Amino acid sequence: MTDALGAVPPPRTVRLAPRVTTKALPQDSRVNNRSLVLQMLFETEAMSRAEIARASGLTRASVSTLVAELVGEGVLAELGLAARTGVGKPGMLVGLDADSSHILALDLSADDRFIGAVINLRGVVAYRTEVSLGGATGQAAFEQVAALTAEIAGRTDRRVLGIGVGTPGIVVPGGTIVEAAHLDWHRFPLGARLADRFGLPVHVGNDANVAALAVNTFRGVGAGDLIVVNLEQGAGAGIVLGGALLEGEQSAAGEIGHVMIDEDGEPCVCGRRGCLELAIAVPHIRRRLSVAGVAQRDEVLAAAGRALGIALAPVISALNLNRVVLRGPEDIIAGPLLESARTTIRLRTMAVISDQLSISRAIDGEDLVLLGAAVLVLSALIGVS
Amino acid sequence: MTDALGAVPPPRTVRLAPRVTTKALPQDSRVNNRSLVLQMLFETEAMSRAEIARASGLTRASVSTLVAELVGEGVLAELGLAARTGVGKPGMLVGLDADSSHILALDLSADDRFIGAVINLRGVVAYRTEVSLGGATGQAAFEQVAALTAEIAGRTDRRVLGIGVGTPGIVVPGGTIVEAAHLDWHRFPLGARLADRFGLPVHVGNDANVAALAVNTFRGVGAGDLIVVNLEQGAGAGIVLGGALLEGEQSAAGEIGHVMIDEDGEPCVCGRRGCLELAIAVPHIRRRLSVAGVAQRDEVLAAAGRALGIALAPVISALNLNRVVLRGPEDIIAGPLLESARTTIRLRTMAVISDQLSISRAIDGEDLVLLGAAVLVLSALIGVS
Repeated sequence: MTDALGAVPPPRTVRLAPRVTTKALPQDSRVNNRSLVLQMLFETEAMSRAEIARASGLTRASVSTLVAELVGEGVLAELGLAARTGVGKPGMLVGLDADSSHILALDLSADDRFIGAVINLRGVVAYRTEVSLGGATGQAAFEQVAALTAEIAGRTDRRVLGIGVGTPGIVVPGGTIVEAAHLDWHRFPLGARLADRFGLPVHVGNDANVAALAVNTFRGVGAGDLIVVNLEQGAGAGIVLGGALLEGEQSAAGEIGHVMIDEDGEPCVCGRRGCLELAIAVPHIRRRLSVAGVAQRDEVLAAAGRALGIALAPVISALNLNRVVLRGPEDIIAGPLLESARTTIRLRTMAVISDQLSISRAIDGEDLVLLGAAVLVLSALIGVS
Repeated sequence: MTDALGAVPPPRTVRLAPRVTTKALPQDSRVNNRSLVLQMLFETEAMSRAEIARASGLTRASVSTLVAELVGEGVLAELGLAARTGVGKPGMLVGLDADSSHILALDLSADDRFIGAVINLRGVVAYRTEVSLGGATGQAAFEQVAALTAEIAGRTDRRVLGIGVGTPGIVVPGGTIVEAAHLDWHRFPLGARLADRFGLPVHVGNDANVAALAVNTFRGVGAGDLIVVNLEQGAGAGIVLGGALLEGEQSAAGEIGHVMIDEDGEPCVCGRRGCLELAIAVPHIRRRLSVAGVAQRDEVLAAAGRALGIALAPVISALNLNRVVLRGPEDIIAGPLLESARTTIRLRTMAVISDQLSISRAIDGEDLVLLGAAVLVLSALIGVS
């Protein structure tokens, strides 16, 4: 064997992808099996213990033990006998007891109000209320969040699994919000503050990120990778790849609002100029609509959709994802903006990408952040394999 | 509890992220433990059995059994006694036996030649050779690949783990190349053809994708998410997130060459116009350099870097990754192109993104595709948890 051209010095260490990150210990198996069974029962209405065993590959004995444990916790319930299908006696069906526990969900994404809800294990909103922000900032804004949380907590008599929050701004692990300018929150430890106040587990996520989780979880099971673009006060996105939320190295994945798209554009609040947010965030679009004539309405909206499409085409191509969901006020999004974004993205991506692409508007945009906040809490219940 | 505003119909099924996709069975544990130990020994030079047990959480008995099995297969070897450190007798170190097995790696990414290499378990190139393509296409091009494979196979007397290939074009699971125009390969089952011919496991990946795997594995362990942009005959990218290659819904992740960047631009071979590839692929840049005067050389290169930066800024922002590597001919990439790409990306991304960003040129660009092709085979050896 010749050591010829191109030999490189031996690397001292290598890391192969995908990483092996978990140890397989007996206690991990139990946790994994619990996750597996819960995951299966979240994805269907009801199964017999025998069906769970077949589908999971676990033994009947393990399944019986696990189901007994989960029924004891109140998460699962026996739902009646399965329909008779030929020989053998029909099995008792078990399924999620959707109202055995509730989640307190908060949506802080609007600039003028906070929304709170009680949500069950199937994502059904049992109670929902809003409070006007009234310009509160800093500690006063936090006290409004706490009062809203107390108010919704009083609306359920079930076990509360935890508090889920969707908020503007970059959220770093531990639930600290790096910056939410309109609330005057800077490195604000919202998760820790709420946990102190209520003694419950708290999970905080960026509003666009949790909206993407909600679409992934409740609006098209197994529909694959997706990006949700949130057009509200600002403009942000949430990306789900392989079923998991993309977080990014500085927890800032999806933060496309301050990508510069016009080097000679208007100054932006961020101190730079020509940011995408100036073209597509709702207040900026409304401002342009207010000075444009009725005849120019469609042009204003189409220009915003086109700017969004130009920024998204490289992202959609690089990720090769098939699903784009726009979320925001219907009067702004539906119509020329959505059409123009769709046309621009299709024009600018190659056929293998654009042929499979679905570009739509979120139907009940208002509640995606609440539902996604609930998903943060549900994911913790189910656990991670 | 009131069923108030905003109640939505109960979803029949939900899927929570991250998905639980694996069952935890005893045989899986054994496979996982094997992966875990191999992964650890790929990441270090040598460890004693006691160190492996401590670091992995496995019992001494399990580690001894696994190590004996891997030494028996020739993958691990005993490397001598550890240095004495106080009390107790020093342990025997075990480590990867880097030349116990070899990998046959092929780089088909250039338009005029194929490169083949014999690579060991540490990514050291033991033998490397090139053949001129001489305009061969279709079956003739495949016969050249096969002849090159036979030639390099004859250069090692070690056990051959498999054949790894980096190729232009989208590669779908099973190793079929959707389209490699200059080779006149259309839905060409290269993986199956090579496996038939050589009776070895074959792993085929897109050239930019495997280059990204190589950077992740050999050029900065644990350095996090990254994008490698390949500027050669065409322009493509490979993206590694969380240590794993991003594949995309149609196996086309990273295919940014045919994002349109200029709706009034030149016609492209893809049938559309104004594609990024026209601005940044090497043949197009060389063509513009050949008609530009010497005084305009820097301008031509800077314009290409700027086009690349404009297309990458939204991608880097959306993914919040910290590492961009450009790969291609030094005379084209190094200098004004790289500088202009760097300046444009920094200008167009917000501080939280750009502050952490490293934008560099691959040092030994030629071999990244070979090394990445070898990583495909190594990953299969180590297995996936």
